[in-house]
Amino acid sequence: MKILVVGSVAYDAVETPAGKRESQLGGSASYFSVSASYFTEVGLIGVIGDDFDPADRAMYESHDIDTSGLIEADGKTFRWAGEYMEDINTAVTLDTQLNVFGDFEPELSEAHANAPYLFLANIDPNIQLKVLDSMATRPKMVANDTMNLWIDIANSALTDLISKVDTLLINEEEAKQLTGEEHLPDAANAIFALGPNSTVIKRGEYGVTLFGENFSFAAPAYPLEKVTDPTGAGDSFAGGFMGYLASVDKVDQESLRTAAVVGSTMASFAVEDFGLDRIKNLTHPDIGERFEAFVNLTRFSPLK
Amino acid sequence: MKILVVGSVAYDAVETPAGKRESQLGGSASYFSVSASYFTEVGLIGVIGDDFDPADRAMYESHDIDTSGLIEADGKTFRWAGEYMEDINTAVTLDTQLNVFGDFEPELSEAHANAPYLFLANIDPNIQLKVLDSMATRPKMVANDTMNLWIDIANSALTDLISKVDTLLINEEEAKQLTGEEHLPDAANAIFALGPNSTVIKRGEYGVTLFGENFSFAAPAYPLEKVTDPTGAGDSFAGGFMGYLASVDKVDQESLRTAAVVGSTMASFAVEDFGLDRIKNLTHPDIGERFEAFVNLTRFSPLK
Repeated sequence: MKILVVGSVAYDAVETPAGKRESQLGGSASYFSVSASYFTEVGLIGVIGDDFDPADRAMYESHDIDTSGLIEADGKTFRWAGEYMEDINTAVTLDTQLNVFGDFEPELSEAHANAPYLFLANIDPNIQLKVLDSMATRPKMVANDTMNLWIDIANSALTDLISKVDTLLINEEEAKQLTGEEHLPDAANAIFALGPNSTVIKRGEYGVTLFGENFSFAAPAYPLEKVTDPTGAGDSFAGGFMGYLASVDKVDQESLRTAAVVGSTMASFAVEDFGLDRIKNLTHPDIGERFEAFVNLTRFSPLK
Repeated sequence: MKILVVGSVAYDAVETPAGKRESQLGGSASYFSVSASYFTEVGLIGVIGDDFDPADRAMYESHDIDTSGLIEADGKTFRWAGEYMEDINTAVTLDTQLNVFGDFEPELSEAHANAPYLFLANIDPNIQLKVLDSMATRPKMVANDTMNLWIDIANSALTDLISKVDTLLINEEEAKQLTGEEHLPDAANAIFALGPNSTVIKRGEYGVTLFGENFSFAAPAYPLEKVTDPTGAGDSFAGGFMGYLASVDKVDQESLRTAAVVGSTMASFAVEDFGLDRIKNLTHPDIGERFEAFVNLTRFSPLK
């Protein structure tokens, strides 16, 4: 197992200008693991309820995702309901039911605890910390995501966690909220001061900016004609980003740059259909072709 | 003369989080012509009042800008007052005094009327049309900028103008307002349906997206640690963009891509100081170095 991910597995009710779904498989760990599965072997740590559809577990397994860490608990699977209105970038949360997620105690096998890449997807930073502390050997690379909720209600645990990771993936607004800085280079420096040596600032339809040791890199989002459902775009980015790094087994500047474009590639697929419908059915040629579209979108000739 | 520009010459009162200026030289034609002057010969068509500072005319001339079309009229120079608050991307207009600009009747010499590149900077589309109609020969390339005001109050003249230009440079919000489209590729297609065969959608701190015949290109904005005064960023972009195209005397896909990065380079300088203070004092090595910074900001290696 090259990457271990801990995060949410959920059933989402989603409404977007393109339509409505009552109960679709979602959650940060779902998007991450399916996206990363195109590049490397992934193990998923999470919790589901007794209402979990066996077809959904089968879908993970068809992507060679190790689900031995996906615990079934008494009760219902985590549920989130949200809608995207005119501003397709911002979800309005209508309802959150933690259900089995409320008492989630992650348990790691020996294989889990020795994974060389660890992604702590957006959940309570106390759970993220628990998983990190359960690793038998410190992974080669640890990255995490978070959200405004944890910045507000679990700031001390979050700051502790961030001090221990290599890379923070975070939305632009949340980076500003976390650091109190308005300009991205200042926000990145403030994040570096907390501990990480790289950070990916996610800017929705405007792409991402990656800050590393003495370099920065900007990748646009792919200019899609149709955005069906933005849910999971950030976690699909993270899956492509980490999946690529694990596949080349390097976290140097060159790999980080390419990984950010692979992440953008996966995010661009994720939003093309509801839930996981697009990214669970990709082929390697699909991914290669979209990556090339990013090459074409960004290439330019030197000054004459 | 390679480029002719018509637009405003103004004295601006500007307040930003970085400070305040009571009366600084500005206006779309000022930013454009100074920015373009680093690449080619520019002629400026505009109007000034009897309060215009001879030192400002001397500044243009020190950049080899032909000011024979800068008419002095009885009255005061156009004045704009605005402020940028927390959201440094959006100016709040506090006051506009058209002054001599209200009765502006552009007059073109033979040299003006034969310029091969024409930029119709953001002014009343009726004046933009008048200048375009005064050209002796149809320029090789005509581009224009506009703003929400003209979309609202002079829509028919604006649509007529856009049908006659090659390239529309426009802010993202205004592109959406003009076309009624939410997604950029749809907005670009709607602009193409009006006449142009390329369009640059300006996205402030998120950079620009260029749409051309069967290609798109995205350039990020340079991640600056300090934005002092965003006034004139769009016109400085346009000056670099058109200045580069005129200097290579080509408007093919490759030139348009590089031109968009040159534009972004000039815009990144413009916002570093108040008014024209930074872009009027650049050297060619400064520009080459910042262009290289864009190469580094955007380059990535192929998939492994």
